[in-house]
Amino acid sequence: MNKKYDVAIIGAGPAGYTAAVRFAQLGLKVALVEKDKLGGTCLNSGCIPTKFLWQAAKTKQKILKSYEYGIKASMEPVSFTDIINKKNRMVENLSKGIQRLLESYGIDIVKGKASFKSSTQLNIKSSIDGGEFEISADTIIIATGSKTKPVANIQFDHIRYIDSTDALNMESIPRNMLVIGGGAIGIELSSIFASFGCDVTLREFFPQLLPSEDSELSGEILKNLLRQGIKVEVSCENSFKDEDKFEKVLIAAGRQSSVEELNISNINLQTDKRDFILSNQYSTNVYNIFAAGDVAGKSFLAYTAGQDGINVAEKIVNKKNTESNDPIPKVVFSFPPAASVKDTNFNEYKNVLYGKFLLSANARAQIEFERTGWVKVAVDKESEKILGVWLIGHNADELINTAAVMIKAGMKVSDLSKNIFFHPGISEAILGACENALQKCTDLPRNI
Amino acid sequence: MNKKYDVAIIGAGPAGYTAAVRFAQLGLKVALVEKDKLGGTCLNSGCIPTKFLWQAAKTKQKILKSYEYGIKASMEPVSFTDIINKKNRMVENLSKGIQRLLESYGIDIVKGKASFKSSTQLNIKSSIDGGEFEISADTIIIATGSKTKPVANIQFDHIRYIDSTDALNMESIPRNMLVIGGGAIGIELSSIFASFGCDVTLREFFPQLLPSEDSELSGEILKNLLRQGIKVEVSCENSFKDEDKFEKVLIAAGRQSSVEELNISNINLQTDKRDFILSNQYSTNVYNIFAAGDVAGKSFLAYTAGQDGINVAEKIVNKKNTESNDPIPKVVFSFPPAASVKDTNFNEYKNVLYGKFLLSANARAQIEFERTGWVKVAVDKESEKILGVWLIGHNADELINTAAVMIKAGMKVSDLSKNIFFHPGISEAILGACENALQKCTDLPRNI
Repeated sequence: MNKKYDVAIIGAGPAGYTAAVRFAQLGLKVALVEKDKLGGTCLNSGCIPTKFLWQAAKTKQKILKSYEYGIKASMEPVSFTDIINKKNRMVENLSKGIQRLLESYGIDIVKGKASFKSSTQLNIKSSIDGGEFEISADTIIIATGSKTKPVANIQFDHIRYIDSTDALNMESIPRNMLVIGGGAIGIELSSIFASFGCDVTLREFFPQLLPSEDSELSGEILKNLLRQGIKVEVSCENSFKDEDKFEKVLIAAGRQSSVEELNISNINLQTDKRDFILSNQYSTNVYNIFAAGDVAGKSFLAYTAGQDGINVAEKIVNKKNTESNDPIPKVVFSFPPAASVKDTNFNEYKNVLYGKFLLSANARAQIEFERTGWVKVAVDKESEKILGVWLIGHNADELINTAAVMIKAGMKVSDLSKNIFFHPGISEAILGACENALQKCTDLPRNI
Repeated sequence: MNKKYDVAIIGAGPAGYTAAVRFAQLGLKVALVEKDKLGGTCLNSGCIPTKFLWQAAKTKQKILKSYEYGIKASMEPVSFTDIINKKNRMVENLSKGIQRLLESYGIDIVKGKASFKSSTQLNIKSSIDGGEFEISADTIIIATGSKTKPVANIQFDHIRYIDSTDALNMESIPRNMLVIGGGAIGIELSSIFASFGCDVTLREFFPQLLPSEDSELSGEILKNLLRQGIKVEVSCENSFKDEDKFEKVLIAAGRQSSVEELNISNINLQTDKRDFILSNQYSTNVYNIFAAGDVAGKSFLAYTAGQDGINVAEKIVNKKNTESNDPIPKVVFSFPPAASVKDTNFNEYKNVLYGKFLLSANARAQIEFERTGWVKVAVDKESEKILGVWLIGHNADELINTAAVMIKAGMKVSDLSKNIFFHPGISEAILGACENALQKCTDLPRNI
């Protein structure tokens, strides 16, 4: 048994399954190899389960605040097991959706662990029966993603020392929890667990949460975490100082490469010092082998991985240029969520005007009783081009896409108007902040 | 007492108060005359209270569906009086916000009913003490808005024959209600009242609800109204046939002019046959008198009225051209909400490709248990420019702004990518529909 394909893709996460579909759309015969579950980290232990639990927590908050509308509601104590069961069912449904998607395109789903025998030959150890077989392909895409990075001296026992995957599958809410790492994952899980009554301590080595994010946005996230009752320590040099006080220790201190099981030494594939695959627009040092998604070590986002999947297929089949100047939105699901997006050349602009709009001055935010937060924008003084948008508040995760589209299109403040923003909408606050940067906002009092 | 201003504005709704602020920003001395409450129809009996009640109904629905997350909640029977009280307090707060806004710019708020004595002279009958006085201004802006149009032979008694303002102030939910008029207002109030247990019958004279809207979107709204248990009759020639069966008869059959109290015959101001003021880019036949917002009879939306307010001030003070090709989003708050936006030259494109994306295939819609709905887009076949977006589903009212921005910027499908849409977001469905129009969507099974 040695099936021959045009393309074999290792890893069925967002990069891998999207690449598989695009290759199939372009007429190629595709094998998609996955040792675990379809959907990768995003679906099984990342974006999707996190947002489900966040949404459950948000639902709880909405019930508790329904009196704001004159509605009297009450709630039984939350069973985290019930929520996790619902989450698992959701993940399973979405996984079936991916399977149907792949099957509709005639893609062969190969369930097993791949390792390179040669640059066109993969050994597969079946996840079904443990048997081994080979497949061959003219082109091979590595899209194996990334995994949680352990912290020096600490081994994950997946009981007390846990990673985000473990956290998303706990059966009950721990009394208290130490979260190591103030990046997006640490912040999101802290917010969620605190919402369900866990006493959370969040520690970050750098002086601010989300070290590379705008300091004002990061500061606002910090305030909201504190308001939730989370103990946050930044510039924390010894995160484990009193770790014995905690029922659980969640480590969310970054992601690491996932190539070690692939036997890439057999094909002399080059990696960087962190073990991520060295690549230039998906091409590696081996002419027929490409890297897409997290495994290239450049971006660790499901949506950029999905775009990688499309790009790598278009590059290989249609010789399309894959260079992009897309502004990439970033979102963190705290309460409320926070998001940002910047022009890719943001740092080259020297004369930048800033504008701000508090959501407390936005009618829709008031109507939804979501008055916490603001929008900040950066505008080039000379051209009045919109360069960046930072948003914290209800719906920030959807609204940031409007900002990303504006920046991608190179829009100027004068291209916007009240005509194109429905009222009453929170989106209007983006317009308000843009106008405020030019001292022209008609919805804010003078001198604010 | 005859105070002299650079500009007097009649009507403190979105057009009037926005114009007042922009005139003040441009250095003019401004009087804003209002006989009733600040904020006009939008704040007091339109957009804002409707969305508040809609949101209250949505909150109720969310509580009843919280079991989807494994949460067990219960609710006491809703007291509509409580909800209306909360709504009133919200409106009052927003009204105070407008007052602070106007005061910060030193705008004189004149509380009274204006009528023209001459083209520069207004007689004011005070709403405070009934006294009369005059003010004069070099420029006068009429921004008196519109009001509910009665139906032939039926007089509003505001008890049984009610308009939208009455509906938004009822003390209890009627057992049943006949709603005449299947436009946005009729649909929204039907949806809201049905949510709170009212047996609603909605009748529309034309063959479809929202007669000028895309028929597929209108059809989907119809389906959702029926699903809510609302009885809907279209092509209904005698809406009053069995009106005695209904506790309340709500008439929402359009808007009419509001100029009859202004004594415009004193200044020979021309109106059209429906009594709306004849104007060309805000200019009327009287050189120093301008019309902004609903009173010009062109658009009946708060946000376009707000833009009118800015435009009329910029035209008068800075001689700015006010012609616009802004695509204007339209939203209807049914359950779920529906929205659309089109290129202003949409009808000139002859070779149009359509793409669709069902929200049931969107991960975020699943996570939020909001799987009902879809996005449809129209793309010019030759240029691949995005020409129109129709959206029905959760958050349609905010997401439509992303579409409006795309269309305003003249974006092509190839300008979009997964990189600029956060995952998991409902916004991704817009991208999916655009790609689907070109048969390139990687998130939909083949042949769908």
